[in-house]
Amino acid sequence: MSTNLAVIGGDGIGPEVVAEGLKVLGAVLPGVSTTEYDLGARRYHATGEVLPDSVQDELAGHDAILLGAVGDPGVPPGVLERGLLLKLRFAFDHFVNLRPARLYPGVSSPLNGVKPGDIDFVVVREGTEGLYVGAGGVLAKGTPREVATEESLNSRSGVERVVRDAYARAAARPRRKLTLVHKNNVLVNAGNLWARTFAEVGKEFPDVATDYLHVDAASMFFITQPQRFDVVVTDNLFGDILTDIAAAISGGIGLAASGNINPTKAFPSMFEPVHGSAPDIAGQGIADPTATILSVSLLLQHLGHTEAATQVENAVADDLAAREPGVPVRTAEVGDRIASRVS
Amino acid sequence: MSTNLAVIGGDGIGPEVVAEGLKVLGAVLPGVSTTEYDLGARRYHATGEVLPDSVQDELAGHDAILLGAVGDPGVPPGVLERGLLLKLRFAFDHFVNLRPARLYPGVSSPLNGVKPGDIDFVVVREGTEGLYVGAGGVLAKGTPREVATEESLNSRSGVERVVRDAYARAAARPRRKLTLVHKNNVLVNAGNLWARTFAEVGKEFPDVATDYLHVDAASMFFITQPQRFDVVVTDNLFGDILTDIAAAISGGIGLAASGNINPTKAFPSMFEPVHGSAPDIAGQGIADPTATILSVSLLLQHLGHTEAATQVENAVADDLAAREPGVPVRTAEVGDRIASRVS
Ligand SMILES: CC(C)[C@H](C(=O)O)[C@@H](O)C(=O)O
Ligand SMILES: CC(C)[C@H](C(=O)O)[C@@H](O)C(=O)O
Repeated sequence: MSTNLAVIGGDGIGPEVVAEGLKVLGAVLPGVSTTEYDLGARRYHATGEVLPDSVQDELAGHDAILLGAVGDPGVPPGVLERGLLLKLRFAFDHFVNLRPARLYPGVSSPLNGVKPGDIDFVVVREGTEGLYVGAGGVLAKGTPREVATEESLNSRSGVERVVRDAYARAAARPRRKLTLVHKNNVLVNAGNLWARTFAEVGKEFPDVATDYLHVDAASMFFITQPQRFDVVVTDNLFGDILTDIAAAISGGIGLAASGNINPTKAFPSMFEPVHGSAPDIAGQGIADPTATILSVSLLLQHLGHTEAATQVENAVADDLAAREPGVPVRTAEVGDRIASRVS
Repeated sequence: MSTNLAVIGGDGIGPEVVAEGLKVLGAVLPGVSTTEYDLGARRYHATGEVLPDSVQDELAGHDAILLGAVGDPGVPPGVLERGLLLKLRFAFDHFVNLRPARLYPGVSSPLNGVKPGDIDFVVVREGTEGLYVGAGGVLAKGTPREVATEESLNSRSGVERVVRDAYARAAARPRRKLTLVHKNNVLVNAGNLWARTFAEVGKEFPDVATDYLHVDAASMFFITQPQRFDVVVTDNLFGDILTDIAAAISGGIGLAASGNINPTKAFPSMFEPVHGSAPDIAGQGIADPTATILSVSLLLQHLGHTEAATQVENAVADDLAAREPGVPVRTAEVGDRIASRVS
């Protein structure tokens, strides 16, 4: 049974890092067939199209999607985010947005005195609800009376399914600890739903130790006590912010992987580096493809190729440990080195 | 003309740190008359009252309010936050929530290689709008059909006044740089209002250099490049999160001051440390009152006692520089030392 992968290289450094991700994937798992889709800023500028329905339908027929990055400064804010990235997350019901944070040996953290092992947690970010649903409106736009609203929508079933997924992930890890992050002292409606659901689903996982933090406190503790986190579950917007903090403390956005996962497999899941298209360094062959390669590891894990997933992650870890500090990265060389470690 | 100060010590370490704030205030500005108000968890448990209207009216008659911290684990989430803290911010139209971040000499940052001078910025957090207004509701609570919503309300006038205040603060600082933080690629209604208003008001301040960052990127840059920030303006919730990050990187919540400011002076402004009531260390005389004392400096600044404000901030800086690393803080001693430096 071969794997059919849809590939969206996108803009800027996107295609460059995706090429390396595919190189590593091909080395560790022979027989993957790929179909490339031309989506992103370039297509938008050329045709005005963001995500034609026919393309969405085709994507739906694949086993998984690998995405590089989309966007350039010429596209108005929101067009590609809401029209492509978030559209796919919602259409394919990617309710688990999985973002591991791990400080690998050889990588320097901006945090003082933090060693590999001190940062090793995973954020399970809800991916289909909250402030990302696009609810809200504008009254009297451009006038002194203007009012703009944004609405966060949270359903019991939506919260429950991601919370349960996070408990299961926590239960499978050695430390078995799950931290809920919200702001239930201010956002009392949604916060109460999350807290109640968290407590109720917790009864199914008596071995998992639980904790609750407000998002402001959690942001602080990511910096001052990253050791205290094992699995973190949180809503869509808080997860967006927390995972950039997590990326920053574990060596930067160049290493941060993510999976937009539909655990039911009713639709393909989508894997992508957390970083953007970085137009300033595009085309120079100097983008670090590591985040994409780690995203490939998450993809393999999701498709059940557990051993291959571990091989890729270990190869990345070995490569990071072997890098000369201060020597600039060459995109293709990183891919070559990691591919050769897994072949 | 003497100053009439309302004082809310609150719970836990609140009264302890406030006592030191008043000690320093008395030393630097003779003739302040204070009225104490018993509000917070203790009163709530004893009487069920959070903020009686009569007390709110009395508070309104003062020149300013100094608050320690309120809350204990026995109060349901939201009761004191929404019924007291946020109620006062809204009732007294505290639209500028001012939170300076400065790494003082002698204080160690959790960030590698960051020196005093590298962190010296101020966050102007909007204080009366956004997700903090308490809009939203719950459908079918406690059932599988439950839906909980939170609504962010943003008005042109509300955004404009805080943005203008932030520009004015930036224009008065040597670096003259203002960064807008939002998430306008996802929260397009509110984000567009903020971005448009930011651009328009900016025409009044041609000397101020401007920048825009998404909140996730800003959270990362607070950690990886704090030097790039001078004045930051942002909405209520993003400001809540960013200022805890700012506190973390500049030596911790024990040093973070804040002012809930109504620049029109139509109502009293309220000054408080960013930290909470810390019930675990209450009553032991070991809480660091520095954040409260720095809040007193902001209070003096707001009331026009610029020289006294600077004296207090300098005294704090000198005290921090003179502390023996590793020696635990004694609350009253810190107050004594700083008071004696300003007398
Ligand atoms: C590009 C943007 C829509 C996206 C998000 O906010 O989720 C990004 O920041 C991310 O974290 O994947
Ligand atoms: C206690 C809470 C309501 C408050 C807030 O969210 O504003 C606090 O976190 C703060 O930053 O002052």
